[in-house]
Amino acid sequence: MKGLHLTADLRGVDPALAVMRDGEALAVLCREAVAQAGLTGVAELFHRFAPADAQSGITGVVLLAESHLAIHTWPELGGVTLDVYVCNYGADNSAKAEALMRALIDAFAPVSVSRQSLIRAAASTPAV
Amino acid sequence: MKGLHLTADLRGVDPALAVMRDGEALAVLCREAVAQAGLTGVAELFHRFAPADAQSGITGVVLLAESHLAIHTWPELGGVTLDVYVCNYGADNSAKAEALMRALIDAFAPVSVSRQSLIRAAASTPAV
Repeated sequence: MKGLHLTADLRGVDPALAVMRDGEALAVLCREAVAQAGLTGVAELFHRFAPADAQSGITGVVLLAESHLAIHTWPELGGVTLDVYVCNYGADNSAKAEALMRALIDAFAPVSVSRQSLIRAAASTPAV
Repeated sequence: MKGLHLTADLRGVDPALAVMRDGEALAVLCREAVAQAGLTGVAELFHRFAPADAQSGITGVVLLAESHLAIHTWPELGGVTLDVYVCNYGADNSAKAEALMRALIDAFAPVSVSRQSLIRAAASTPAV
């Protein structure tokens, strides 16, 4: 469960990009980027919000053997949020997480991006 | 896309709890906690890792109208990681996110917890 969680919040993404509105196009991008990064997808779910017009965004997740990838697109705002969480159980997957995040950011070609990085399960305090 | 992303990494969870090993039990917990918090689930996916014995964990996600909930259980480590991300598009869902996280942590009754909180899409820098 120890691992690296990367987030990226993108702005200025062209809402006409297929991956912003087409669930299958987004799924193909995610599958290819996961495989290219050397990570292992085990299940996936993509949901398009109604009404299914040019303003409707998609939420998608790919469950990974190493944890998960989550994407939300907001065509009406030209925005995308990305989460890549990889556990480092057995191997350090940090470089693969970074490669996956980089590939996804590049695919959306945003004008600007806000990135954050969390170390997961590094320390804990008593639950109250 | 602006919103609040809460994470909690739990340790010292009883691996014999049904929600640690039984995908349907975990799904029921998530559905009820989402509804109780006043959030709206739109789709879900729960995956149990093979071999399906007492050592196999579950990865689950509930896609929300407000963004997503993601859970990974690690019975072999007595650990659980939780992510609750809510956008505040149209309404401030921060209190609902906190209520959902609190309910889930309570359900797992961990010995210790490591929590983090991210503000998503608050600011951005030029993409390079």
